[in-house]
Amino acid sequence: MNASLGIGLIGTGYMGKCHALAWNGVKAVFGDGAKPRLVHLAEVNADIARTKADEFGFAKSTGDWRQLIADPEVDVVSVTTPNAFHAEMAIAALEAGKHVWCEKPMAVALADAERMAAVARASGKVAVLGYNYIQNPLIRHIGALLEQGAIGTVNHVRFEMDEDFMADPEALFYWKSEASSGYGALDDFGVHPLSLIHSLFGPVSRVFAHLSKPYADRPTKEGKRRAVETFDIASILFEIGAGISGVMALDRSAWGRKGRIAVQIFGSRGTIVYDQERMNEVQLYTVGDRPTEQGFRTILTAPHHAPYDRFIPAPGHGLGFNDLKIIECHEMLNAIAGKPARVIGFDEGLVIERTVHAMAQSHHEGRWVSL
Amino acid sequence: MNASLGIGLIGTGYMGKCHALAWNGVKAVFGDGAKPRLVHLAEVNADIARTKADEFGFAKSTGDWRQLIADPEVDVVSVTTPNAFHAEMAIAALEAGKHVWCEKPMAVALADAERMAAVARASGKVAVLGYNYIQNPLIRHIGALLEQGAIGTVNHVRFEMDEDFMADPEALFYWKSEASSGYGALDDFGVHPLSLIHSLFGPVSRVFAHLSKPYADRPTKEGKRRAVETFDIASILFEIGAGISGVMALDRSAWGRKGRIAVQIFGSRGTIVYDQERMNEVQLYTVGDRPTEQGFRTILTAPHHAPYDRFIPAPGHGLGFNDLKIIECHEMLNAIAGKPARVIGFDEGLVIERTVHAMAQSHHEGRWVSL
Amino acid sequence: MNASLGIGLIGTGYMGKCHALAWNGVKAVFGDGAKPRLVHLAEVNADIARTKADEFGFAKSTGDWRQLIADPEVDVVSVTTPNAFHAEMAIAALEAGKHVWCEKPMAVALADAERMAAVARASGKVAVLGYNYIQNPLIRHIGALLEQGAIGTVNHVRFEMDEDFMADPEALFYWKSEASSGYGALDDFGVHPLSLIHSLFGPVSRVFAHLSKPYADRPTKEGKRRAVETFDIASILFEIGAGISGVMALDRSAWGRKGRIAVQIFGSRGTIVYDQERMNEVQLYTVGDRPTEQGFRTILTAPHHAPYDRFIPAPGHGLGFNDLKIIECHEMLNAIAGKPARVIGFDEGLVIERTVHAMAQSHHEGRWVSL
Amino acid sequence: MNASLGIGLIGTGYMGKCHALAWNGVKAVFGDGAKPRLVHLAEVNADIARTKADEFGFAKSTGDWRQLIADPEVDVVSVTTPNAFHAEMAIAALEAGKHVWCEKPMAVALADAERMAAVARASGKVAVLGYNYIQNPLIRHIGALLEQGAIGTVNHVRFEMDEDFMADPEALFYWKSEASSGYGALDDFGVHPLSLIHSLFGPVSRVFAHLSKPYADRPTKEGKRRAVETFDIASILFEIGAGISGVMALDRSAWGRKGRIAVQIFGSRGTIVYDQERMNEVQLYTVGDRPTEQGFRTILTAPHHAPYDRFIPAPGHGLGFNDLKIIECHEMLNAIAGKPARVIGFDEGLVIERTVHAMAQSHHEGRWVSL
Repeated sequence: MNASLGIGLIGTGYMGKCHALAWNGVKAVFGDGAKPRLVHLAEVNADIARTKADEFGFAKSTGDWRQLIADPEVDVVSVTTPNAFHAEMAIAALEAGKHVWCEKPMAVALADAERMAAVARASGKVAVLGYNYIQNPLIRHIGALLEQGAIGTVNHVRFEMDEDFMADPEALFYWKSEASSGYGALDDFGVHPLSLIHSLFGPVSRVFAHLSKPYADRPTKEGKRRAVETFDIASILFEIGAGISGVMALDRSAWGRKGRIAVQIFGSRGTIVYDQERMNEVQLYTVGDRPTEQGFRTILTAPHHAPYDRFIPAPGHGLGFNDLKIIECHEMLNAIAGKPARVIGFDEGLVIERTVHAMAQSHHEGRWVSL
Repeated sequence: MNASLGIGLIGTGYMGKCHALAWNGVKAVFGDGAKPRLVHLAEVNADIARTKADEFGFAKSTGDWRQLIADPEVDVVSVTTPNAFHAEMAIAALEAGKHVWCEKPMAVALADAERMAAVARASGKVAVLGYNYIQNPLIRHIGALLEQGAIGTVNHVRFEMDEDFMADPEALFYWKSEASSGYGALDDFGVHPLSLIHSLFGPVSRVFAHLSKPYADRPTKEGKRRAVETFDIASILFEIGAGISGVMALDRSAWGRKGRIAVQIFGSRGTIVYDQERMNEVQLYTVGDRPTEQGFRTILTAPHHAPYDRFIPAPGHGLGFNDLKIIECHEMLNAIAGKPARVIGFDEGLVIERTVHAMAQSHHEGRWVSL
Repeated sequence: MNASLGIGLIGTGYMGKCHALAWNGVKAVFGDGAKPRLVHLAEVNADIARTKADEFGFAKSTGDWRQLIADPEVDVVSVTTPNAFHAEMAIAALEAGKHVWCEKPMAVALADAERMAAVARASGKVAVLGYNYIQNPLIRHIGALLEQGAIGTVNHVRFEMDEDFMADPEALFYWKSEASSGYGALDDFGVHPLSLIHSLFGPVSRVFAHLSKPYADRPTKEGKRRAVETFDIASILFEIGAGISGVMALDRSAWGRKGRIAVQIFGSRGTIVYDQERMNEVQLYTVGDRPTEQGFRTILTAPHHAPYDRFIPAPGHGLGFNDLKIIECHEMLNAIAGKPARVIGFDEGLVIERTVHAMAQSHHEGRWVSL
Repeated sequence: MNASLGIGLIGTGYMGKCHALAWNGVKAVFGDGAKPRLVHLAEVNADIARTKADEFGFAKSTGDWRQLIADPEVDVVSVTTPNAFHAEMAIAALEAGKHVWCEKPMAVALADAERMAAVARASGKVAVLGYNYIQNPLIRHIGALLEQGAIGTVNHVRFEMDEDFMADPEALFYWKSEASSGYGALDDFGVHPLSLIHSLFGPVSRVFAHLSKPYADRPTKEGKRRAVETFDIASILFEIGAGISGVMALDRSAWGRKGRIAVQIFGSRGTIVYDQERMNEVQLYTVGDRPTEQGFRTILTAPHHAPYDRFIPAPGHGLGFNDLKIIECHEMLNAIAGKPARVIGFDEGLVIERTVHAMAQSHHEGRWVSL
């Protein structure tokens, strides 16, 4: 991590800004390595590109992302555009010899994800997906607890992911309701719990899914109604390996849920419970206490949960969502430096994509699908 | 409800005492009708029967439940024995012209439940099952909110029921791990969420279930290990009518969960969340507020939520589990008096049993089963 | 506890019914001793007395409470009338050779409370005050934890009691706003935290109080406004013994609080947190855990917390407010039977009353008052 | 905010890094103004200064803070050293014509704080204190709700601030137990709730305080014990203006509390509750709902609560502690640019300091002290 890396960022929306903040902050937070240079920012509208480059601190801007990829000063490319563009951009960047940090999911079509993984493998470059929730120090700590056998052998898990940005039945039809955007909650949300499952347990072995539509149609700008083509709700049974049964429920029309990723992990000696909406808390129940004092304990993130200590030396003061991206950025830098890194690379990402597509297949065929 | 009813109680365990407390307290709480007379108590051990009759306030006791049923002073029979005895006792009581209040589930075998329902229908007597969770004033209030359209049209529901009395892998093998006791969590727990579903929404239309065993075997008293025959975990997808998708997760080996029945109901205009472990609270989210003040509100049970007012005139002071049985007892008395009553009778109970058996069938066949 | 005691009940309101339910249920719940006989019920309106006697199961009724006290069949008298009547009734009952179970607080005037205690002492009868919150199995368990040193030496405590029945500024002026009813929140609420303090720690040694009025006046039925004479808010600093500093905040106009009694106990090795609105939960933090797993654990009431097991054999199912009165009733019976009993008798109650009056004095004089 | 400001930072500890992250991130988050240039970093150890300058991204470093203040490239000085140095550094910086952003509290001695305020006033420069908790978008929103009358007229407030870094009685004696560090919890913690009170309500009018020591002495490195000179616990009654009564409880030896700042605000039409340990949530209760649906609603921070939207466009994803400093930094820049700014300047800070000293005086004199 000695030589300063030149950073290119494609996209300036929600995740674009999140990447920019991470690249900008990672050195000051972690202190190691050379501070990345914010070299080039691409955004389809060249004017916006220029404005955002100024805001985010990038030296150059362009309305043509291929110019960014052609820039020899750029060593790493952040891809934060809509999913439909991931494959083309990531592949071009890898083929141009850049490392790639691409937002999730990999692509709408499985074939595109497969191509991305193949190109990444051939390139020898670091190719990482933006699964930031696994970077929460408490999620890492859950991993450590599981490894240490704190709750014994895990036999059952439940994952829920819910938000309400599609909850209003009278919200206008937009691209997320078009089939071209994917299946719906299944790929839009499902990949996040799957990233946690991969990070904590390993791959899913078989799935059974049911997709449903809360609203059959939505109003259009023209004052008509258009049939909804995607499924805002997905309910899934699954197994991890031979021994862990699982339930997953996804809903992007769940009124009142804003960023819920609820996790329940049951083992032979205890239980772990987590909810992303309270991302600085984890609940742990372990046997062995006196029966009169048994109970779930609420653990607040503390400096003992690395790398929280890089942000704040006092416990219980709280990380934010954007901090997770800074940690992810640091792991990306670790990977580039050849150090051990906690990331989900394109190969592992492809396993996640295949799991999502197997779920969709299961829904259509009404049967379990093995992976 | 004018003439005083003579009560017979079979069984003196967990639910036996719960019924006794209910029969003893219902008049003082509700004030209407004649106070039931605690006439006869049966328990296989005649000595225990005598002791418990004194404790609970029953005039007579017997070691032979058939004597109780033959007692002309007995008008209503509470059946609180293990599930395997429900059918024989309930049928005998109905055939002897008694009203029957039978603990859930109806029976292990579907054929027995069908016989019970048929006899009840033929008897003209009141035959009610002990689904006490539906009696919580807040569950009733959830029903009222749904009827009033407070959260619009419901499109998705989730139910979880978890306890940890089977969670210790080294607990001795006992009858709940034998196939003769039923499927496991599916019937032991599943009937409770199903009673709520029936009470709030109506019957389930199709199911897909997966049953699993957290522990393959358990130690025996003889120091050996015996294979577990029942499934302590059940994961189910289901639909209610044509439009509501559902997820149900049941686990009687879930460390740390003591009496959890977690309910999430998602509608087109809001969401309702409930957990039996905090049975005096319900969470309600509805749209229409200013965006800056949107959030789940925590509603504490209050006198406005009838019949809480019969217990306590001040809000937020809290009902207990046993109070639900007193409410159920009062509904049973309403039914006997020919008044409107919120109960789950044998016919509705049979629908619940059929749903459970369909779930088991689905597990074995790996496909959706319609009802 | 062998001979059956005859019970007389004066008052049929909130606490009257609560006592009736307790006398009616105590034998079935606890199983020991003889079932109390509900002999006589008094209520100023003879018609209501008759109706309530039928509802609650009392054999006789009267509109003249002196008849009840004169009744030789009555062994114990429950006094549940407004505070202004406590002294006269309790003293008459004690002088008639009855045991007395009197609702809190003892009296409005300190002199009355002193007379009550003196008469009780002279009578040799059991005289107990209705401080039911100390009967919660979890409050008892907090006491056990403190005795066992689970949180080390206590150095600081905080108590809050809040409800909102006086919160509406436009609610009509009624007797609770008249000076004749007492000081306001100080005596109406303060005695409850004080009962917990006495039960858990012992007497308060000095106090500093500030009383305040959220609303200067209230509307009257006649359409005018009348100045409020009592203080709906009380804020108090205090010390227990030489070493424990304390804060107490009382508010009966606290919108949204329904039955809050929030307790925080800080010790040299841990902390205990409790809130009556979630009366089946206690939070315990103790040092000694690994730093990565430190946190408050939420303990649900379980059979290990006696006498919860007398109500329900399964953990986490929840007691209700009325169950606390049944436990208190059983302790009263223990006291009458000469057994160890966890009650607050008139002498200890008098200490509580003196503490309240010292608080009022402190408010008026703007200085610490020692006890 | 057009010309880029040169930043000097004195101190590299907890708050030093927090300022560095804020100066580094503020432009990318807010997008407006010129990006501040990180010019000079001072730290008593010149080697550490050099290392930290590299980490944090400062161009120059020094072991002598006076060199930093003499640096003409520096326009703004962040003072994050121990409290004892604030006065000297802040005054020197102001006198050198720099803007000053000084961590709280102003100084140990009131006379120093008074000098700081006088110099700031004379300088015409911006002088701001690091009261970051007021910058939480939800605290701002509480302010907006109060202004809008959402909970009517406020009549009572409660503030608690608790951490446990001094909770271990066997932790070694260090400077925070020396009288030279101040009073203890009173100034160490009390200024934070006071900053919220000032921000939300205005100045405190009178106070009554009681300070206490949980542990009389502590072990020293030499194996002896030394008497503790500061008070780790402070309990305070106070009034705001003529109408609001308040309670404040501060404890830096409160096991299990990590960053608790609990706020309760009671008004004539509702109640607001907040806890810094869950800094992305606020509880709001307002009357006017149907009685059956009254309850506290839990509001998660959302883009509607500016400037959360500058960090994340999706609701409920969570800000962290460090983000508050970025907001504060932006307000500091606003102040320098002559725009409206939500900051606590030295004059308002002085009022806070005077309030703290009045509390200490009250403790010593056992009486109310007016301000």
